[in-house]
Amino acid sequence: MAPSKVDLKTPKGTRDWDGDAIVLREQIFNTIKTIFERHGAVTIDTPVFELKEILTGKYGEDSKLIYDLADQGGELSSLRYDLTVPFARYVAQNGLQQIRRYHIAKVYRRDQPAVAKGRMREFYQCDFDIAGTYDAMIPDAEIIKVIVSVFEALGWSGRYTIKMNHRKILDGIFQVCGVPEDKIRSISSAVDKLDKMPWADVRKEMVHEKGLAEDVADKIGEWVVLKGGKDLLEKLQSDASLAANESMSQGMADMGLLFEYLECYKDTLDAVSFDLSLARGLDYYTGIIYEVVTEGSAPKAEGTEAAKPKDKKKKGKTSEDDDRSDDPTVGVGSVAAGGRYDNLVGMFSGKGQIPCVGISFGVDRIYSITKARMAAEKAAEVRPNKTDVYVMAFGGKGFDGLLKERMRICDQLWEAGISTELLHKAKPKLQAQFKAAELSKIPFAVILGQEELIAGQVRLKQMGLSESHPEKEGTLIAITDLVDEIRRRLDQMKRLDHLTQSASGLRVVDGVRGEDVATTTAEPTTTIPSA
Amino acid sequence: MAPSKVDLKTPKGTRDWDGDAIVLREQIFNTIKTIFERHGAVTIDTPVFELKEILTGKYGEDSKLIYDLADQGGELSSLRYDLTVPFARYVAQNGLQQIRRYHIAKVYRRDQPAVAKGRMREFYQCDFDIAGTYDAMIPDAEIIKVIVSVFEALGWSGRYTIKMNHRKILDGIFQVCGVPEDKIRSISSAVDKLDKMPWADVRKEMVHEKGLAEDVADKIGEWVVLKGGKDLLEKLQSDASLAANESMSQGMADMGLLFEYLECYKDTLDAVSFDLSLARGLDYYTGIIYEVVTEGSAPKAEGTEAAKPKDKKKKGKTSEDDDRSDDPTVGVGSVAAGGRYDNLVGMFSGKGQIPCVGISFGVDRIYSITKARMAAEKAAEVRPNKTDVYVMAFGGKGFDGLLKERMRICDQLWEAGISTELLHKAKPKLQAQFKAAELSKIPFAVILGQEELIAGQVRLKQMGLSESHPEKEGTLIAITDLVDEIRRRLDQMKRLDHLTQSASGLRVVDGVRGEDVATTTAEPTTTIPSA
Repeated sequence: MAPSKVDLKTPKGTRDWDGDAIVLREQIFNTIKTIFERHGAVTIDTPVFELKEILTGKYGEDSKLIYDLADQGGELSSLRYDLTVPFARYVAQNGLQQIRRYHIAKVYRRDQPAVAKGRMREFYQCDFDIAGTYDAMIPDAEIIKVIVSVFEALGWSGRYTIKMNHRKILDGIFQVCGVPEDKIRSISSAVDKLDKMPWADVRKEMVHEKGLAEDVADKIGEWVVLKGGKDLLEKLQSDASLAANESMSQGMADMGLLFEYLECYKDTLDAVSFDLSLARGLDYYTGIIYEVVTEGSAPKAEGTEAAKPKDKKKKGKTSEDDDRSDDPTVGVGSVAAGGRYDNLVGMFSGKGQIPCVGISFGVDRIYSITKARMAAEKAAEVRPNKTDVYVMAFGGKGFDGLLKERMRICDQLWEAGISTELLHKAKPKLQAQFKAAELSKIPFAVILGQEELIAGQVRLKQMGLSESHPEKEGTLIAITDLVDEIRRRLDQMKRLDHLTQSASGLRVVDGVRGEDVATTTAEPTTTIPSA
Repeated sequence: MAPSKVDLKTPKGTRDWDGDAIVLREQIFNTIKTIFERHGAVTIDTPVFELKEILTGKYGEDSKLIYDLADQGGELSSLRYDLTVPFARYVAQNGLQQIRRYHIAKVYRRDQPAVAKGRMREFYQCDFDIAGTYDAMIPDAEIIKVIVSVFEALGWSGRYTIKMNHRKILDGIFQVCGVPEDKIRSISSAVDKLDKMPWADVRKEMVHEKGLAEDVADKIGEWVVLKGGKDLLEKLQSDASLAANESMSQGMADMGLLFEYLECYKDTLDAVSFDLSLARGLDYYTGIIYEVVTEGSAPKAEGTEAAKPKDKKKKGKTSEDDDRSDDPTVGVGSVAAGGRYDNLVGMFSGKGQIPCVGISFGVDRIYSITKARMAAEKAAEVRPNKTDVYVMAFGGKGFDGLLKERMRICDQLWEAGISTELLHKAKPKLQAQFKAAELSKIPFAVILGQEELIAGQVRLKQMGLSESHPEKEGTLIAITDLVDEIRRRLDQMKRLDHLTQSASGLRVVDGVRGEDVATTTAEPTTTIPSA
């Protein structure tokens, strides 16, 4: 490549979404959005960058990952790190007392990427949050219902776990075990690594890096490795030293209510795991915390040393150099995470606290897992666009391409709302037109010929029929009937698609096109059931 | 405000989208997206920032408006200025020979904002482009069809004009008039200001600022004030000195074809204006250029001095200080713009040119105009969310709130895909529940009472019925029938909405709720027409 040419790539840790990927991703978005709207959420859209001071002091150790805009005069701004802090700013700025909002948008983190695993520097979050002063654990339980509904709708039934814990329980354990108050958040961060390293390594970090007494670490170790359901809560409740702790007893009361409420919400109790090792890195959580994991979330390697980050490469100019996709010590991570943050809005507003609880779905990771599974299952093909009809022309010697005639037919179909294309050539070859239609898996061709046009007709042909099919050559249709006939066939196709659709919740294939469409008996459009 | 509190606002020239605004904006997006997909476009999603060198040298004088990311180590990047350059980078990077793509996303310009007029620093573009080597003006004509379809679908019929011109015609005129080759782009920029200032001022800029000879400027002045249709093209063609110019004759041949092709595409010829003053600022256009204007696009003030930019205010810390919304010399500007750019992909790729033509819709401005018109027309109310049912409880003395019973009914409705909310209080007041339902304009309430529950029933009530309506108090329904009954009523409501929908293309109201829904005779869901 000539040196004057620029490096043709996207910035490190970012990607273009196109082709099958964006079609699949849009389906995931729509699935999630449908669930959010089913729970009464409105959507908001905040700027991609916020004033820098809005983000300052909200992310603890991770603040170093924030992208700043250059100082070109005027206000200092940074790209948003998540959708939660902008949401809290929005609630405070508008003095809202309550809102359920969802927000699907990109966030930015200057982290080491692992592109194939969906760990990116620019990635999507799909957030659902409930803000307002309500009774304990009622919104928190609904969040779990939302999580379950999303993964069930994505077809992940039985393949995901909602790990949950409570900050007050965790803090209570730390207090009872004897962790000094000023070390609680850093010890909490160490515990959070238990999904990536064994207890022995976490203990080492606590004692050697964070200066915790060995016996305190050992006491912590007895508790944080525990997980279970209501049984675990009962175990905690039966421990007198824990029950005497104020923070602990508040947290346990909350978890007790939660387990009661989840009994009302289908599929939730089977999906949750009360996991005392879950801590979550961010400072702003105050109550329940959630993290959804699935196959591939944890790193493959189990060794202790291997789990430590490798030396950074010095070269690192292109994204390939630094990508950690092949690193067995890097898992996909959680596919959704969230929790209760009752003090964040109050950090912005002088008008008191607005309690909040929410969940954020990591769509890039959900996409990566879905894509890998589809490849393994050899799922059916995806149509790249929505075009239903390709208008083409065909003729022998002296054929002039029938350009304006093709344009007029296209115009008629567009005006009827039918997605239609033509080849942008004055005298196109028939082969080129068919190839274009096949490439985009377009279901119907309308073929113009000079003689048929004189008779006021065109040929309507279903694409992809076998050689032996009686309608392989298509049928002649009066131009005046063309729109109605195409609508009739598209409606039939939609009904067949509906019937042959896969049982899994996520619709991957836009159209499974049976050979029966062309020959099915016509029904007037207006009486086709809408179900 | 205490000094420790941060300034609660979005960065200058940006805004939050929420409430009615985002509902209306989403409807505009969907209208545009439907048209794009009707013309066979696929969508792509590129990163919000690109490597800085990708953007360098593409925007001429406007390059100073590009936002850079801070240099925090690693690659230098900038926020995208438009969607066109990232598209060209994408086409070159992937070695594509042809693609029709649409892209709806935010772009960034460090310009002086006028928020109420939709002139923002962060704003949305909706782009549709056709890349590929095709025959002259066939894709260009389809772009005009797309523009017309979008504005007709938005209900702007008769209220917009597609100004069009051809870079080769403009350059031909400049050459024939005697503009030196190295001044052509800067003289072109001056001509482009004719929509904001009178010819006398543009002439002054040419002569005094850009050093053009007075007689050359006068010759230009004879041509660039002309506008019309095919008649104008014929006038140009009949001028021997113009016809002899190579660039001019190529441009005129193109425009001749275009007028021919537009005859095939409904509503297009009425919408276009061949306008020799249209020049467009960006360097990369090589053929036809488009700009769509409407009422409010041009500034209000007609004076010559007033049209010049005012002195910049020094203070300018908050967006209010610098906002130009009240400045009569600032119009909304164009609501869509685009053109042919045959050399841009080749600037990135060593593999030769991929000709492109496209259009970009400015949704923030379209939104501002639509909103102002709706306010003037007192358009019907917008529902903030999609919730169809509010589940509430009611009881006398000793009422325990029926929380779990409400949760179970909600769960049943959610599982059936019905958007449902409950008040997150253990013992809610009836008034608070009704208020919440009314606030969100939720059409139905399901009311639980202890006695009814024992009988396996709940009360289903349509909200907003008048005091005298026979079903004002709602009807008792068996819990086992609840889902079916709600579905039946929602289907009827949808049909009524469809029938009472306004004639304008854009559906502003999500639900016009007649009083007839409760009393309409039931029909089995499966035979309701889908039309």
